[in-house]
Amino acid sequence: MVMKKFINNPADLTRELLEGFALAYADKIKLLSDKLVTRAKPKDKNKVAIVSLGGAGHEPASGGFVGEGMLDINVVGEIFAAPGPPKVIEALRLANRPAGVLFIVLNHAGDVMSSNVAMQMAKKEGLHVKMILTHEDIAPGIDVPPEDRRGLVGCVPLFKIAGAAAEAGQPLEDVYRVAEKFNNNMATLAVAVKTATHPSTGQSIFEMADDEMEIGMGQHGEGGTGRSKMMTADQTAEVMLPSLLKAVKAQKGDSLLMLLNGSGATTLMELFIIFRRIHRLLQEQKIDVVARIDEYLTVQEMAGFQMFAAKMDQELWSLWNAPCDTPYYTVQ
Amino acid sequence: MVMKKFINNPADLTRELLEGFALAYADKIKLLSDKLVTRAKPKDKNKVAIVSLGGAGHEPASGGFVGEGMLDINVVGEIFAAPGPPKVIEALRLANRPAGVLFIVLNHAGDVMSSNVAMQMAKKEGLHVKMILTHEDIAPGIDVPPEDRRGLVGCVPLFKIAGAAAEAGQPLEDVYRVAEKFNNNMATLAVAVKTATHPSTGQSIFEMADDEMEIGMGQHGEGGTGRSKMMTADQTAEVMLPSLLKAVKAQKGDSLLMLLNGSGATTLMELFIIFRRIHRLLQEQKIDVVARIDEYLTVQEMAGFQMFAAKMDQELWSLWNAPCDTPYYTVQ
Repeated sequence: MVMKKFINNPADLTRELLEGFALAYADKIKLLSDKLVTRAKPKDKNKVAIVSLGGAGHEPASGGFVGEGMLDINVVGEIFAAPGPPKVIEALRLANRPAGVLFIVLNHAGDVMSSNVAMQMAKKEGLHVKMILTHEDIAPGIDVPPEDRRGLVGCVPLFKIAGAAAEAGQPLEDVYRVAEKFNNNMATLAVAVKTATHPSTGQSIFEMADDEMEIGMGQHGEGGTGRSKMMTADQTAEVMLPSLLKAVKAQKGDSLLMLLNGSGATTLMELFIIFRRIHRLLQEQKIDVVARIDEYLTVQEMAGFQMFAAKMDQELWSLWNAPCDTPYYTVQ
Repeated sequence: MVMKKFINNPADLTRELLEGFALAYADKIKLLSDKLVTRAKPKDKNKVAIVSLGGAGHEPASGGFVGEGMLDINVVGEIFAAPGPPKVIEALRLANRPAGVLFIVLNHAGDVMSSNVAMQMAKKEGLHVKMILTHEDIAPGIDVPPEDRRGLVGCVPLFKIAGAAAEAGQPLEDVYRVAEKFNNNMATLAVAVKTATHPSTGQSIFEMADDEMEIGMGQHGEGGTGRSKMMTADQTAEVMLPSLLKAVKAQKGDSLLMLLNGSGATTLMELFIIFRRIHRLLQEQKIDVVARIDEYLTVQEMAGFQMFAAKMDQELWSLWNAPCDTPYYTVQ
């Protein structure tokens, strides 16, 4: 069967998508050494550098968030695959500077393996790097060890928080501290309703019956908390929100940042309708919320979304609201 | 069959999506009188107001572009349906001011009918409104009368151009002049590869074979230039770009703004790969280009995209690059 995607040779997917991205956003980013997305106009090296990594196929994540106030370098792997250690250490060397480097890694086996090898090399070479691991998926439960919880869309607001602290000239220890605070304050729960096509193979990444959905499914089709019948928007909000609130220990008077991150084929229309119900539920509990609803980290044309929440304080809001300028997230 | 969309009662779609949108982006926009999306913090009325209208179901268009430097008011209809004349005249009355109102209408039968009725009422009431009609679809050919060419994603950069001129304090005649210049300089060609589900009825909006695509298909499944076999990304760029260049009369040394607007389920990955080929073709012809690639005007989970180009000059670039701050388009 013909794949209904606009691609050329599947073997060239990552190279071609990165070239096109860099040509379109040449005013903001540039491509170095094939797989490193860097700022078009890097600032002087008096600030902490923020570096991340991840497989391609999840655009705009994460190269779309390279720029002023967010990432300095993103290392890209092949479709749904971590970049190898040589590319990762190359990025850390490039980013290395007296102010230091914060290296943000999402908890997925390949990313963690490459990052650990690169961190060992960085240590030997005397590079000034601290690593932080995101693992905010609550699908497996909130009391399981961090290594059993995946990193989902929470990396994107974490880039923003850490990036703003770095841009403000904070030293590495402070950038690390505030990033870890946000990291510990955040939780994500995903839901999938329709599969996606792996663009390299043309195969569906999972199968799902016509009337089913699955809460907790990971961004590569990893199993969640089991299938259920398709719910309405309101029911979905009512089922998912309480787990998130419990995970971030939200209480009356608290203030939350929420993201609803569309996986690909789920419309903003649907996410707005879901957020309407979320907002009412939070109002009943006297919890304040600011929301952003968009596609930050996608899974090709998968239908579903990730519901993200973080408990905020004044320091975190101030970093969240600071200006940034990247291809896919800008704050004036 | 169960619809795989997160909705509640289909009769409540538009009301619920607008409520959710306004609650999420309360710092930027607010909802007045049910179907009017307005700025949360309107500036004083010394500037020209920019107003537009359109059916829901195409989010983020066009309420997502209300804010500083773009729209003042967007009037929303039901899913894929124009708002009626009473809502449109209500918006024009609300926007009316000594500096005047520029009213941007996309050429679709319902939108034009409502707008013409409202403009007649506005004239009787002595409101200070000038209307501009977008009709940049080149699928029916570039020499057909404007009334036979639909308005597509070109409305969004037009909001930006006109909005920047208004924000700069230009008088209505100048805002109108520069908006018409951009309007006459722009062209769009769409392509569809997979259908979408109408969220009110659960029905597919068109049928398409598993190996087919259609260039020129409209944003509600309106017929284009006929079905063809699915092409590669490079072939698609090679077939579509020359028609656009011809339509905007682009020549060596010209400078273009291009948008690749995903219809819903087509990934940024694919659009980046297509742009890579476009950029090379333009380079060969010594035509400069700045591109933006995102979902500005969607058709639910339809797969396909709209390729937009406008020939730019110094005045248009300066307005395009001016700051703006809206839920779904921000320039620092």
